[in-house]
Amino acid sequence: MSSGKSFKLDPKRDLVLERVVEVSRELVWRAWTEPEHLMKWFTPMPWKTVECDIDLRPGGLFRTVMRSPEGQDFPNLGCYLEVIKNERLVWTNALEAGFRPASAAEATSCGPFLFTGIISIEAHGKGTKYTAIALHGDEAASKQHAEMGFQDGWGTALEQLVAHAKTM
Amino acid sequence: MSSGKSFKLDPKRDLVLERVVEVSRELVWRAWTEPEHLMKWFTPMPWKTVECDIDLRPGGLFRTVMRSPEGQDFPNLGCYLEVIKNERLVWTNALEAGFRPASAAEATSCGPFLFTGIISIEAHGKGTKYTAIALHGDEAASKQHAEMGFQDGWGTALEQLVAHAKTM
Repeated sequence: MSSGKSFKLDPKRDLVLERVVEVSRELVWRAWTEPEHLMKWFTPMPWKTVECDIDLRPGGLFRTVMRSPEGQDFPNLGCYLEVIKNERLVWTNALEAGFRPASAAEATSCGPFLFTGIISIEAHGKGTKYTAIALHGDEAASKQHAEMGFQDGWGTALEQLVAHAKTM
Repeated sequence: MSSGKSFKLDPKRDLVLERVVEVSRELVWRAWTEPEHLMKWFTPMPWKTVECDIDLRPGGLFRTVMRSPEGQDFPNLGCYLEVIKNERLVWTNALEAGFRPASAAEATSCGPFLFTGIISIEAHGKGTKYTAIALHGDEAASKQHAEMGFQDGWGTALEQLVAHAKTM
């Protein structure tokens, strides 16, 4: 990970998925930051990502809409916090675009919990060491995220990302 | 204000204090970003700011402790989001240091509402055009902040800042 870390892990409150994948970090970065690519892998099938807005700068909007197999749509609103090309992407759903706090209604119904996501990538041989982190405000939110299947969900999405990246 | 704005005002949800003050923006910046100076003006008297930690970078800690005339201490935890020297300072109490979401306990007891603060300064003759903005997630939070005395509180603090800056 970069030496200039902007965050600090707390094993009690945070969740981490770390893998080495066989695509370049440039492709991983593009898969995370270009809507037409992100929509191809972001949501474990048979769910789909049907909308995606990316304004790639601190304070910029990160919005997706996930559609369940039954056709129900689930919007996710977030704000980018740190954008270091080919190295680290940080966003949170505790803020909306323009650094505005999420509304109380959003904050309590949101996903249903608040987290800050960090994707950290570094070159590893011909591939990439990929680290996905979710920071939470307390242990309860972390536990809930874990029980909702953080490892399986983010792991399956990563496998989909790699499969898609090989076609890019 | 800078052309590269990272936020967008919403009259229904945001509060704005705009004044021209007769000290340079370099002094205003230092008064906001150096703990020994901030502690001198930040809290309308007879309240006091008795502790202050500033880690001046996106993701860095902004922490103060205010003491009431009765001696009760009120800590405030926040996270810097944007730091553009002598131009714009943005932080929020919706996040803690390292971009971590505020804990649910903190988020519901916090101040008692969440906001993102923006201090925007630009040269104006020999003085400074000073704009302080509080972004809220919804109208209820904005109304509550207004009723708690945003205009008077931030205005009085600014007068204290100017008086202190003249001694710097």
